[in-house]
Amino acid sequence: MQPHIVFDDASWTLQLLDQRRLPQESIWITCNTVAQLVDAIQTMVVRGAPAIGVAAAYGCALACRQVASQDHWRTSLKPLLETLAAARPTAVNLRWAVERVAQAVATAPNPHTAAALALAEARTIHEEDIGMCQAMGHFGAALLPDSCTVLTHCNAGALATGGYGTALGVIRAAVAMGKQVRVLADETRPLWQGARLTAYELACDGIPVEVLCEGAAASLMARGEVQAVIVGADRIAANGDTANKIGTLGIAVLAHHFGIPFYVAAPSSTFDLATASGAAIPIEERDAKEVTCPCSTAIVPQGVGARNPAFDVTPAGLLTAIITERGVLYPPLEEAITAVLGGRP
Amino acid sequence: MQPHIVFDDASWTLQLLDQRRLPQESIWITCNTVAQLVDAIQTMVVRGAPAIGVAAAYGCALACRQVASQDHWRTSLKPLLETLAAARPTAVNLRWAVERVAQAVATAPNPHTAAALALAEARTIHEEDIGMCQAMGHFGAALLPDSCTVLTHCNAGALATGGYGTALGVIRAAVAMGKQVRVLADETRPLWQGARLTAYELACDGIPVEVLCEGAAASLMARGEVQAVIVGADRIAANGDTANKIGTLGIAVLAHHFGIPFYVAAPSSTFDLATASGAAIPIEERDAKEVTCPCSTAIVPQGVGARNPAFDVTPAGLLTAIITERGVLYPPLEEAITAVLGGRP
Repeated sequence: MQPHIVFDDASWTLQLLDQRRLPQESIWITCNTVAQLVDAIQTMVVRGAPAIGVAAAYGCALACRQVASQDHWRTSLKPLLETLAAARPTAVNLRWAVERVAQAVATAPNPHTAAALALAEARTIHEEDIGMCQAMGHFGAALLPDSCTVLTHCNAGALATGGYGTALGVIRAAVAMGKQVRVLADETRPLWQGARLTAYELACDGIPVEVLCEGAAASLMARGEVQAVIVGADRIAANGDTANKIGTLGIAVLAHHFGIPFYVAAPSSTFDLATASGAAIPIEERDAKEVTCPCSTAIVPQGVGARNPAFDVTPAGLLTAIITERGVLYPPLEEAITAVLGGRP
Repeated sequence: MQPHIVFDDASWTLQLLDQRRLPQESIWITCNTVAQLVDAIQTMVVRGAPAIGVAAAYGCALACRQVASQDHWRTSLKPLLETLAAARPTAVNLRWAVERVAQAVATAPNPHTAAALALAEARTIHEEDIGMCQAMGHFGAALLPDSCTVLTHCNAGALATGGYGTALGVIRAAVAMGKQVRVLADETRPLWQGARLTAYELACDGIPVEVLCEGAAASLMARGEVQAVIVGADRIAANGDTANKIGTLGIAVLAHHFGIPFYVAAPSSTFDLATASGAAIPIEERDAKEVTCPCSTAIVPQGVGARNPAFDVTPAGLLTAIITERGVLYPPLEEAITAVLGGRP
């Protein structure tokens, strides 16, 4: 996989591979301003909790340049960063990344220095994110049998992160170790990130992948065709409750029912220790048209509405383990999270 | 709902409302021959186990006319009826209906009498089917709370039957009794029978309905928004194992997990007492393109395949009850099925 988030120093712009157009077209979107980036995040040009975090970190560098000509640049910067941090509500990496860059520029004497510091911090976050994915891959790959079929949901791959991926990073690492891993990718309605992005990434890497509708997962599990489930996360509360793409909770319940291990792969930036449990995680509701008009075709009769929560919360009790860059966390998860991540900056 | 399966005596043709085009267009397909009807069944112009049974019964009348000019008309009729009975493998109503009409014409002295007898038997099957749906509605409506939200999957409505519906018949009857019923309709990938047909039928009747992607069902159940699940069936084995549209098993597991009653509504023609358990029910696998090319748009990268089982089997142990035209069957289902349906023709 080529990089999909690229900051160009020369033009001081952020280039994003438009994930809405994949796999049919590789089109890049250029962001010069925070407003453009917020739009790109909200319309899902870039998506996936860690990827949004990385993009937003670079967005802070854009923000610093935007306010550079203003007398009270620091006063102007603050609401701009807040707008960026609030672009989407569920994934915590977004706010985490913005706050980290804000801290890095807190003592900058002028906006030009702030911009340079912001870019440096964003690059560090980006590199760290890839490193965390590789570390997760290392720890997670050990959990998979030598020959197995893994079900995954949505896209928790290179495209959802700075690169390499969380859930797909584990699969990539297992394949690199010589394990025979086949992947079943939930298509992931309404936006088909599984059918489009996970299938694209894995096919690029030559890893066997087949797509299925969400409704077929139970049937394949019942037939004994799935040995493990691995998904990513948008926010993990202090007790281990995990917000992730809508449909994750259903798969977790099925895995539990059929006795299949259910793993969440997520870097420490996805943990929100200030949120006690999943009940306090805000769940984004998106436009019903994502459901009613797939591929721009109205399938639902006029006048009939749709429900479209973008995320759900899987209770910690349904998780076999959480794979992080610091190791694998097993139940009781609240204790494990506190022990391993409690002291993180 | 207007009739959607109409036999025209004058032209001796079967008219089918093309369910692939609903709700956008109301287009009728004319079948003059068994081959045309088999194609209509396989391409899902008409779908839903009881509706396929009714259409196939009328198809027997077409078959009798087709062989009328042949010397050995009875010898020619047999393979024609077998082709019709084998058009799709999972729903048992299809073969049941063809065998019933075949029996009705078994002693006909000539093909013209056979055709008349076949049409009369088909009309009887059609009327009985509507009557059975109304009886199911009567028994099933009593199971629903006075005010509730019911989740349903696929389309088990008027369009899936001779008229009125199985699962939706129960909802129609509950509304007719004055109960406040709101419906959540799973969109039902890959062919969107829920988003297209269930939403259409219920909107026509003024019953509140909202559509959701399959992946959102668990989330709404977890929030306490679903008080009951009602689905139809394509074949019920002697032990109560139930084949139905792919995705049903997943919902049954979720309902069990969240403590929500899970009802199957099906007429006696859907029971297959000769099949001991769900393991022996043949499951149709359909073209992967239904998954990879929704609305004729390729979403999956070239070279990546998809799994597309059209049905799954829900074990009897996950069923709260089966609603039939002869009453509600409660566990132990094998005993209840034998007691109530064991003596049927």
